[in-house]
Amino acid sequence: MSDTERDVRLVAERAKDAAADLAPLSRAAKDAALLAIADALVAESASIVAANADDVARARDNGESEAMVDRLALTVERVNDIADAVRDVCDLPDPVGEVVRGRTLPNGLELRQVRVPLGVIGIIYEGRPNVTVDAAALCLKSGNAALLRGSSSAYSSNSRIAEVLRAALADTEVPVDAVQLVPGTGRDSAQHLMRARGLVDVLIPRGGAALIQAVVEGSTVPVIETGAGNCHVYVDADADLRKAVAITLNSKTQRLSTCNTAETLLVHASVYGKFLPLLLPELRERGVTVHGDERVHALDAENVVAANDADWSTEYLSADLAVKVVDSLDEAVAHIRRYSTDHTEAIVTESQSAARRFVARVDSAAVMVNASTRFTDGGEFGFGAEIGISTQKLHARGPMGLPEMTSTKYVVTGDGHLR
Amino acid sequence: MSDTERDVRLVAERAKDAAADLAPLSRAAKDAALLAIADALVAESASIVAANADDVARARDNGESEAMVDRLALTVERVNDIADAVRDVCDLPDPVGEVVRGRTLPNGLELRQVRVPLGVIGIIYEGRPNVTVDAAALCLKSGNAALLRGSSSAYSSNSRIAEVLRAALADTEVPVDAVQLVPGTGRDSAQHLMRARGLVDVLIPRGGAALIQAVVEGSTVPVIETGAGNCHVYVDADADLRKAVAITLNSKTQRLSTCNTAETLLVHASVYGKFLPLLLPELRERGVTVHGDERVHALDAENVVAANDADWSTEYLSADLAVKVVDSLDEAVAHIRRYSTDHTEAIVTESQSAARRFVARVDSAAVMVNASTRFTDGGEFGFGAEIGISTQKLHARGPMGLPEMTSTKYVVTGDGHLR
Repeated sequence: MSDTERDVRLVAERAKDAAADLAPLSRAAKDAALLAIADALVAESASIVAANADDVARARDNGESEAMVDRLALTVERVNDIADAVRDVCDLPDPVGEVVRGRTLPNGLELRQVRVPLGVIGIIYEGRPNVTVDAAALCLKSGNAALLRGSSSAYSSNSRIAEVLRAALADTEVPVDAVQLVPGTGRDSAQHLMRARGLVDVLIPRGGAALIQAVVEGSTVPVIETGAGNCHVYVDADADLRKAVAITLNSKTQRLSTCNTAETLLVHASVYGKFLPLLLPELRERGVTVHGDERVHALDAENVVAANDADWSTEYLSADLAVKVVDSLDEAVAHIRRYSTDHTEAIVTESQSAARRFVARVDSAAVMVNASTRFTDGGEFGFGAEIGISTQKLHARGPMGLPEMTSTKYVVTGDGHLR
Repeated sequence: MSDTERDVRLVAERAKDAAADLAPLSRAAKDAALLAIADALVAESASIVAANADDVARARDNGESEAMVDRLALTVERVNDIADAVRDVCDLPDPVGEVVRGRTLPNGLELRQVRVPLGVIGIIYEGRPNVTVDAAALCLKSGNAALLRGSSSAYSSNSRIAEVLRAALADTEVPVDAVQLVPGTGRDSAQHLMRARGLVDVLIPRGGAALIQAVVEGSTVPVIETGAGNCHVYVDADADLRKAVAITLNSKTQRLSTCNTAETLLVHASVYGKFLPLLLPELRERGVTVHGDERVHALDAENVVAANDADWSTEYLSADLAVKVVDSLDEAVAHIRRYSTDHTEAIVTESQSAARRFVARVDSAAVMVNASTRFTDGGEFGFGAEIGISTQKLHARGPMGLPEMTSTKYVVTGDGHLR
């Protein structure tokens, strides 16, 4: 066993012990700890910003883009916002202890299925240091110990933040080891976390497609896949074209780099000749490059780039949109089933029957009818907080709030009952 | 790609296509297919029994135990019972389409979280050919395509049964490829099934601990761990000793080889001197060998075998019981957390406070208060059917009925809604 492996297993073992003590704590105890964390972040904001300055300087020396530096950089104001987000988590109901199902069995046994914490949640994430606080707060509120493995580019920030969080916990009922940074900045420390089956209950990667793929493929610990979104808007033969233009523009351009941004537009053959001349100038005005199939290209050869097969499977995360004409709703569904990452797809139609068929046949985490793909979001759904958007089918699908960070346990009460 | 790999991927691709057509079918269509299957099993019982005779003869030639041969053997009566079980599945409510959560968001969007099938479920199982029918029926009812990988010892029976099921489906709305046997009897065919990520949505192993471990470790497809049960009964200081004797005997001896059978008894130090003299003669009378720690051994050195560390972690599945005296409830909980497979643990106590602490601190799929461990069972819980008992925390925990064989999808309906 290497030093790194021993170090990672040691923090995981501490996390497991902390999780056992954290699980039965009351909501009041957990909320008190969250408030202590929020207060400590505000009190220590200057030292956090100072630690962050090292990361920012290193990023600049390494020639990182300004967008990257901006994601990394903290100010006192940003730290205060992060602390406010922790206070918001206090206001959310505690999922632990909720009775999901319950009944008295014919023999008199009282059966209850009760929400319990998952145990130890590992989060592997990229450059934003605010995730260190957000993830820790959501884990604590749901009774889970957090093992945080951030990017090496934010190691100085994350280390200071973790110190502040742990110092805040020292005066609360929540065990200090309920929040731990995974030691080491090399690849191998993430690898050992992924292999800590039996100590870590679930891993949630937060970041780009490459990170998520690496975690899914390298883990023996169960993983919840999040985030990759090759989302589609389908404009049906019976669409209200005014709504279709607005929904397409909103889905594509309201924010370019989020997982619920639309990347491909499918248009029914019976309306594309009328619809695309309305849409294409609006896209051009917003700087969006259209990658179109032959029929789309023929409409505006000057501005439409000819699409190739790769366009259908690309999550651009940029001002690009693939556009294809389909001859039927079923062809749209088949295209989606082939190329989608099963995150979010939208149909624009006034036809009840078309909406019903699309909803029934599209197998994605969220299906929108006459609404922007951008609505797939824990905040928009009213969950109050979100640890990620699951694109897998087991355990949780779509935006994951606090209840999705729990398991359940059956509690069966009798009075000497025998089979 | 080897021939076997190609063959396995081919059936998996067919299953995926079949799943897409099966998912939107109505309950009526699925129930009609189940009834057609039940009728076909009855009509073809003679040919099934004939095919089974080959497997039975081979098992006898190989010198298998009579218990093993009995599990394998089919009679016309047994086939009729299997058909009746399929009819029972018809009577269960369809989980697909259930609205799990729903609300109208402040902006007027209608949000519904709806149960949908998982897609393609792979079942890897051992010698009992009835599992071929049971698993197929539960998958169909929950809208999932079934990929069945039985034991080579039952290949002749399973092949004939699969032919009968598929022929019955040919006259129904359910696609024939919704039920398929994975081709090949060698180890490699199971291996390729475990690696068919993207085609198979979940694997459920049904069988002994070795099978389950092999699937968990070898799969890139998500797995639901089932079955291993090192279950504990804890007799508290405040136990009603009469109930404690009855619950211990029932948990250990009502059936010896099931996963919810108790394997270790923990007794509080303040009552063991009174309790064990009541219990030990009853266990002896039932042929149960007690493996005890020092204090237990001292009570009856003639009959109690000295326990070693391996006893605490062994799932005997036989007429053996490990017995240990603990000095506190917390010591019992710590022992359980260390050695349990997190299936089912029971406390016998009249103390509300002890029961509450045990329930809160024991992290197992089911916790019994004054009831036999044998109650952890889909039938006993009133689920009507069970595909297995999950001992993991993600997705499903405890007995898995039809709802646990589904995922969910968010359906969001607007009228031109934009962010």
